[in-house]
Parts: sequence; C-alpha cells; structure tokens
Amino acid sequence: MEEKKIVARKLQGFWELPPEKQVIFEGMLDKIKEVFKRHCFLPLDTPAMELSEILLAKSGGDIDKEIYRFVKGSTDACLRYDLTVPLARFVAMNENTLSFPFKRYQIGKVYRGERPQKGRLREFYQCDADIIGDGELSLVNDAECVKLYKDIFQNLNLPVQTEISSRKVLFGLIEDLGQAQQFSNISICLDKFDKIGEDGVRQGLEELGLNGEQIQKLISFVKLNGGAEIFEKAEALCSNPTFLQGVAELKEIDGYLRAYGLDGNDYKFNFSIIRGHNYYTGTVFEAYLAWNRGAGAIGGGGRYDDLAGYFTSKKLPGVGMSIGMSRLFDIIQQNTCEKVEFCKCAVIPMGNTLEKCLNFVDYLQQNGVCAEIYGENKSFKSKLKEANKRGVNYVAIIGEDEVKQDKITLKDMSVSSQQTLTKQQILNILR
Amino acid sequence: MEEKKIVARKLQGFWELPPEKQVIFEGMLDKIKEVFKRHCFLPLDTPAMELSEILLAKSGGDIDKEIYRFVKGSTDACLRYDLTVPLARFVAMNENTLSFPFKRYQIGKVYRGERPQKGRLREFYQCDADIIGDGELSLVNDAECVKLYKDIFQNLNLPVQTEISSRKVLFGLIEDLGQAQQFSNISICLDKFDKIGEDGVRQGLEELGLNGEQIQKLISFVKLNGGAEIFEKAEALCSNPTFLQGVAELKEIDGYLRAYGLDGNDYKFNFSIIRGHNYYTGTVFEAYLAWNRGAGAIGGGGRYDDLAGYFTSKKLPGVGMSIGMSRLFDIIQQNTCEKVEFCKCAVIPMGNTLEKCLNFVDYLQQNGVCAEIYGENKSFKSKLKEANKRGVNYVAIIGEDEVKQDKITLKDMSVSSQQTLTKQQILNILR
Repeated sequence: MEEKKIVARKLQGFWELPPEKQVIFEGMLDKIKEVFKRHCFLPLDTPAMELSEILLAKSGGDIDKEIYRFVKGSTDACLRYDLTVPLARFVAMNENTLSFPFKRYQIGKVYRGERPQKGRLREFYQCDADIIGDGELSLVNDAECVKLYKDIFQNLNLPVQTEISSRKVLFGLIEDLGQAQQFSNISICLDKFDKIGEDGVRQGLEELGLNGEQIQKLISFVKLNGGAEIFEKAEALCSNPTFLQGVAELKEIDGYLRAYGLDGNDYKFNFSIIRGHNYYTGTVFEAYLAWNRGAGAIGGGGRYDDLAGYFTSKKLPGVGMSIGMSRLFDIIQQNTCEKVEFCKCAVIPMGNTLEKCLNFVDYLQQNGVCAEIYGENKSFKSKLKEANKRGVNYVAIIGEDEVKQDKITLKDMSVSSQQTLTKQQILNILR
Repeated sequence: MEEKKIVARKLQGFWELPPEKQVIFEGMLDKIKEVFKRHCFLPLDTPAMELSEILLAKSGGDIDKEIYRFVKGSTDACLRYDLTVPLARFVAMNENTLSFPFKRYQIGKVYRGERPQKGRLREFYQCDADIIGDGELSLVNDAECVKLYKDIFQNLNLPVQTEISSRKVLFGLIEDLGQAQQFSNISICLDKFDKIGEDGVRQGLEELGLNGEQIQKLISFVKLNGGAEIFEKAEALCSNPTFLQGVAELKEIDGYLRAYGLDGNDYKFNFSIIRGHNYYTGTVFEAYLAWNRGAGAIGGGGRYDDLAGYFTSKKLPGVGMSIGMSRLFDIIQQNTCEKVEFCKCAVIPMGNTLEKCLNFVDYLQQNGVCAEIYGENKSFKSKLKEANKRGVNYVAIIGEDEVKQDKITLKDMSVSSQQTLTKQQILNILR
C-alpha cells in the first residue's frame, strides 16, 4: 500500500446526491414512472453515447463546445445532450417494427460541457414523454400530454396548472400583420412578456419597426388568457386562416381535456406561452406550480411536425412533454416536511441474542417491512444512539428476558415509549 | 429540410432494448430494488464520469485501452468502468458524515471500450450492493450478502444456491504447503477446477512444481463441498492458523444464515470457489441457478480489507455482492412465458364517442389500471387489429348504444368473448 493518498474528488457539476436525498429522489422517480405506466407509455433506455454524425446532424456536423466528444479508434461518439435526438434516431432505426402512435417515456442523464454554476449542471436528469405518429397524429395526444402533468403532479402532491397556446395562433397573427419574416424576432420579444411586462414588450416591438396598431394587436394577443371564453375574443382579433386553425385546435383540445375530467384548476389557455424551440409547430404548453407561478415553469412541451427528418423520409409528427427534474426535486425537498424513512425498524440484540434478532429481521423483511440488524460488536447504548442519529422511528430489542418470554420489546423513538409484544403484534404496528 | 438523410445507427455494443423488452427489464430492476430497500440499503447514483486521477489510481495513472477518456479544457475524465471505484471515492469524500456500517446499492451502466462481441458489451448494467465498516465489520454482514441473493432471486421466482468459501482457508492451506509465494498461480489453477476437472488441475499444479503430496492436499481441498459437515473434514486437512480462522469464520456465517432462515437449498460451502479478484481477503461466494449450475455464476462477491486505501488512511473493510445483469436478463426472458402486459385495457370509440372514451380512460387510470385511448382517425377494425398486434388482453368499446345504456362493452381478446357492463364491473374485472 503506497503512503501517498489521492484526494477523493468528484467532477464538478456532475450529479451526486447524499444517500438520504437520493432516497427522496428515487421516490419521486417512482411516482413519475407510475403515471407513465398507467398511461401505457413504454420505457426507453438509449445509450449514454451516440455516434457524432447522429448527434451533430442538426448542426451539420459542427461540434458544439458544450458537447463531450470521444474519438477512439474508428469510433467517433459524443455523450448525449438531450433525449430527443436519441428518440429520433431510435424511431428512424425501428420505424418498420414499431407500432404507431408510439408512446415512450425516458428518464435519464444528459451531458453538457458547460462551466458549472448554480443551476447549470454538466450532468443532469431529463424526463421526457413523447407520442409519435406515423404520418398523422390526433390532437387527443396533445390533450394527453396536459393530462400527464395533472396526473404526475397530483401523484406528487404538488398541484400544477398547465398553460396552453399554439404556434399557429402566434404565426397566423404575425402573418396577418405582414411580419412573417420577423416571426422569430417578434416571438423572442413576446416571450419576455412575463419578465419585462407590457411596456418592455411595447418598446421591443417598436425597435423591430412595428407600428402602433400592430403593436396593440400583439399586446392584446399576449394578454389573452383564461378558459374557453377567450376563443371568441381571439376570433375577433384576427381572421388569418392559420390563426383560426390554431384557435379551432385549442378548442378541440379543450373538449378532450374536459372529457378527461380536467378543469380550470388544471389548465388554462395563455397566448403569452411561446416556448423558445423553433421546432414546435402547433400546440405549446408549460406547467406551473398552482400556488407559485412566479417560480417559473416546471415543465413544458408541444407539438412538432417531424421528429426525425434528418434520418428518414417517413413523416413522424409528435407531441411531447418534459419535466424539469432538478427544479422539481428542489421543490419536493422544500415541501417534504416528513422525514423519509428508509429503515422502518432497526433490530438490536441485548446480550447474546444476535441469532434471535436475525430471525426476527428476516420475519419483518419477508412481510415487506424495511428492517435491518445492528449487528456490529458495539455497545447497546451506542447502537440506540446510532438509530436515533439515522432517524429510525422504531427499534426492536431482544434481550435474554425477551427470548424467555418469546416476545420482543418495541421502542417508539418519536415518543420514547416501549412495549413488549409478540412478533405478530409488532408486525401489525409496523405495517 | 435537406434531401440527404443520415443513416440512423446506434453505437455497437451499447445497451438498447426494444421497448417491449425494456418493460421486462424494468420489472426485473423493480424487483431487485424492492429487496435492497427491504434490507435498508441506501441507493447511490454517482456520475457516469470520474476524474482520470481517481479512476486510474489503481494502475498508477496508466490509461487502460479499455477506458473511455475525455480531455476537455482543464478536465481530464473517464467514463466509469465499474461501480467500485466510484463507491470508494464517494465513501472517502464523505467519511466524516456517513453512518457506518454504510450499506449502499447501485444499479447503473458502466463502460469498457472493448471490441464488441457476443456477451461482451461496451456499455452494460452492473448491480452492486456493499456494506462498508469503519475499522471493523462483523461477519453478520457477509451473511446478509448471501441472504440478499436468496431474497432477490426468490422475488424473481428464480431459486439460486450460493456457494461460499474463504480466501483465508485457501491462503492458509497454500501457506501450510510452503507455497505462499505461488498463491496467485495456484489460485488461478484451482479456479479452473469446474472447467478442466481434477486431471487438468493436477497437471497444472505439477507444472507449478508442486509435489504429489501437496497436489493431493489441494485436490482434496477443492473437492470439499457441502453443508456444515465439511468443517470437520477441513480441520483434519490442515492446522495452519489462517486456515483455521477461515473455517471458524465460515462456521460463524453458517450460524447467521441458519438464524436468517436459510437452509441447504439456499447455500452450501464449496472450497473450489476462488473468485479471480485479488482484493478479496476473506469470505468469497458465487450464486448459481438452483436448476442449472452449469450455466455459470449469476453473481458473486466477497469480503475485502480496505475499500479506499488509495484515497484515505481510514481503514474501511467491506463485503459486497453483485449480480450479472445481462445474464440474469437473458434467463428471465427465457423463463417468462407470460406475456408482459404494459397496457391492461385499450379503449376504442365506435362512432362519435371519443369524449366518453376519454372519460372512461381517466376513470381506469385514476383507479390504477394501465389504460389508453385508441383515438387516431382510423377505422374501428384497424384499431382492434392494432390492439391484437400489441398483445392487449382487454379492449373496452363505447358505441352509441353503450352511451344510451350508460354501459361499456368489454372484449376479452384471449377468448374473443365480450360482455356489456357498467364501468364499476369492468374495473373489478381489470383489477
């Protein structure tokens, strides 16, 4: 054994939680997956790396500074930076064997070689669910994505409201104003409505050369938000066919959402929802915490025309939703007042009773109770202290008296009381 | 959109299952995790990459051909090739805040840059559970690792038998023969006993220069296998103190395993179990399918003196078990006769009843049934065909008649019968 030690360090900005937090994180993952399963989404687990030609298809092969790339022998590969490119590659590879609509969810880590700073990690979890159609895809699927937010966040005890718009109303209106060529700039400006307010947007639009009437229309537009009552107001605002198609689609989705049992607490329409990504072509949505919209969107997504145009000539329209896992996890930690129990019962021998204790640990485990032995060669007192430090609620103690009586002493650490009971009685308490 | 398409390809040798197999894999993961949780093991999720100086500590900084390495700005990092080095790094980093014994499990992908061939992947899952002590660690923990095999494989409906030995008996005997300096060569030779048989081992030991008496002792030793009755035979074979300590430890573990309720079906002692890794210093074990030992070990592990000697001067003895995930998954696929249901009920509208169907889908999902709408603009017949192709067992049909009666028709696809029922009745059938 060499004397000189290497300092144990982790890569900065890479994901690693202390185990007691990882327990909470895994609980969150389980609750999310449970809803995807109930909705019959299939799990997908793609490699952490993709061939560079696949990952860089979008950028025409240009290597982005943010991407981790390996060149090793004849292999030129990069760590994935999102879960969308792997999905596109997967669907294109398997387009002849998959059943469409293909509904998949994927929760996995992605990699960005940025300089780490608060909230910007180099390795982090993404959670995506997408529904991919073969040529066509009903708007029922857009409604299902909104329902996913409701069901998932309900399962997590965090009510959210999803705010819905459509790229079609936005594009239709801008086209109607004769500004189609400025679509991108105007969108970016309107997207800041929440941040810079009406005056800021007005000024931004002026700088883009729009006149007063055009600006007024856009401002009225982004201020439209609420339930189905806004559709009439919208139709009064603009008669461009793309715009009207967008409104008609939102009406259709509204009907599906009502049928799914969602109401105004679960969703509303909000024309200031833009979504930055250029690939959205229809419905767009963002989910916000019902009691704290100001905390920002906790997820978002929308409809796109063509998932895998780089890889296949088959037209694959889709709609997808994603959840911001780091933000969600922060919120869950802030709102989890209860202690997370990973051990329901610690079993501690007193005197020469270790084997009796092991027998009892097995009994608890076989009956589904998370239990463990404190079997090290340490004093009884130090083990009780350890159980307390670890936040264990129940400690089972077997001493020689208990062995004689064929009973076990159960100590409730939260109230510091104890009872001597049969193993069946203890099981009933612990379950 | 450019005309030229990029061929959608996956990196060879990297993990990716078709979704219907991924469903089975996830089910397997859930059952494994359930047992780790019942045993109060904490989950750990370390980064996919580690600093090269950490990962290459063992080799003194030499880069192994098999390791994927990135050098990017000031970052020199490698993809992890196992889960043990990350554990050692994690425990050393957090030695002052962790509670010992520290029990963690980790299921994650690891990377080896080998040329892919059948069974040798470049990205694959490992599943490890370890118990790390601070200075000392009771043999109760060795017994717990053996119990983990029993409980996990019982949960997977695959009975296994774990075969247990100790490095101490092996080393003690070799030392007693005056061959301590040949420990490694002799171990490698004995390790082949299963493959090359008694004659092969005899010849191998001759080539190492051992005499007839020495060879006979080693052969008698590796042939010792069975229950507690072998300890007496072992003690008659050799009186070296390390050897006798090894036997005493195995006896102690045997007692703990009996106390845990395990019997001869679950484990036996077998002195031909060597385990290649040099870092094992005490108990070693391998788990085999009860009905097919010839298929090879499905997991293995053992006791080591010092987990993180490269990183800390704190002595951290441990005992760990691992499961060969790819092999296990192959076995599960071969033994899963039942169809895996990811969708319990497909709901198909007949006529203009889509919204009624959505309402019913929500009803099923809220009650925990995996259900989905077949809502695309396709014929009823093609949807029924699709449900059949996807292996869905139950199809719920709502036509206008059903709406009038406030009932739903449930079709059992396996027997091709159908009944018109209330939604409550259907829920009772599906649950």
